[in-house]
Amino acid sequence: MKRFAIIVAGGKGVRMGTELPKQFLELDGMPVVMRSIEAFARFDAGMKIFVVLPQEHFNTWGKLCIKYHFKIPHQIVPGGDTRYDSVSHAVEMVQGEGLIAVHDGVRPLVSIDLIQRCFDVAEKMGSAVPASEIVESIRQRTNHGTKSVNRNDFFTVQTPQIFNSIVLKMAYRKAQPDNYTDDASLVDSFGIAVNIIEGERRNIKITNPVDLKVAEWILSLDKK
Amino acid sequence: MKRFAIIVAGGKGVRMGTELPKQFLELDGMPVVMRSIEAFARFDAGMKIFVVLPQEHFNTWGKLCIKYHFKIPHQIVPGGDTRYDSVSHAVEMVQGEGLIAVHDGVRPLVSIDLIQRCFDVAEKMGSAVPASEIVESIRQRTNHGTKSVNRNDFFTVQTPQIFNSIVLKMAYRKAQPDNYTDDASLVDSFGIAVNIIEGERRNIKITNPVDLKVAEWILSLDKK
Repeated sequence: MKRFAIIVAGGKGVRMGTELPKQFLELDGMPVVMRSIEAFARFDAGMKIFVVLPQEHFNTWGKLCIKYHFKIPHQIVPGGDTRYDSVSHAVEMVQGEGLIAVHDGVRPLVSIDLIQRCFDVAEKMGSAVPASEIVESIRQRTNHGTKSVNRNDFFTVQTPQIFNSIVLKMAYRKAQPDNYTDDASLVDSFGIAVNIIEGERRNIKITNPVDLKVAEWILSLDKK
Repeated sequence: MKRFAIIVAGGKGVRMGTELPKQFLELDGMPVVMRSIEAFARFDAGMKIFVVLPQEHFNTWGKLCIKYHFKIPHQIVPGGDTRYDSVSHAVEMVQGEGLIAVHDGVRPLVSIDLIQRCFDVAEKMGSAVPASEIVESIRQRTNHGTKSVNRNDFFTVQTPQIFNSIVLKMAYRKAQPDNYTDDASLVDSFGIAVNIIEGERRNIKITNPVDLKVAEWILSLDKK
């Protein structure tokens, strides 16, 4: 089946407190989002890659591509106000049937192995979503306050999340985006089963300066 | 009200993959658990501190106290097979009524401010448990697979968790430890409301080598 990747990097960088949105920050000699794109190109040099970027940073991106001699072919898609809008734009640009991997641009440490496992499962089952155990105790909000819940019943969800392109397009066209947090939540709001596979600890999401330090440290281990 | 702290460091170090359990590893010049104890002694030099340690490491602990010139008064309690057993032993050693703060020995970066806020709320309300937002999407296990849930309805729970000593003793004596994950879960299994307050991002739990690196980095920021 044809393979597509949508790298979502539409964030405008509010949470990080830096001028440059976090996807453009340098991580061990390369902007975060380039490393994410590179992971997919390494997995399959022939796959079509869409990169969602904030429109006001298209220029930034052009300059970064020159500065870092970034040659991996990709198509830029203008980001929307929300992640839902951003992915929605990109999904509409996919032509033909195939598998679409939606990946957070700020998860640069995803391994080729995880991408491979996700595509393998999605080929067979129609979808694949990597998830991890929660190591801390968790509580749930109730009408009266909060209650303890069994953390073994819950997972945190990573990306890439892979779906058949027909299903994902339908989901984005018909969804009510109110409860949207990720592609899996959108797809299963239509009653379509989502296949969970084991994620990986290194596949962290870079949302603040501490995460960037952790990512540097993980990369330094790769070199040993 | 009288104040007590139970620092729970009964772990035998399986997850970390190091010979020395993680609570004894050095973090910026001091074993992790000593830093946790120190935080409570700095908050209130007069409070009674119990430290739960694995019995087979009592010798290790003695040597570490000499090596690091550790002078903070504390009472050692032998750990059990589970966290439930460990805390249970320590709770029984508390004499008189007061507030008991149960704290993970592997959360060495807890701030004096958070300890203060927890005790302040517990004085007024009878309990205080710090909690944080979940930044990643989460899914819940169901009979058929998994389903997406709204992450805004969930929190991860930190320590110190503070309770009235009478309530906590009763809870540990009467509880069915099957669904136990922390003290809050135990107390609210008796229908007693648990007061949630805002935790802090720096108050991480050290469960693997990456966490130790993050902790070092956070401490380096404190010095700036």
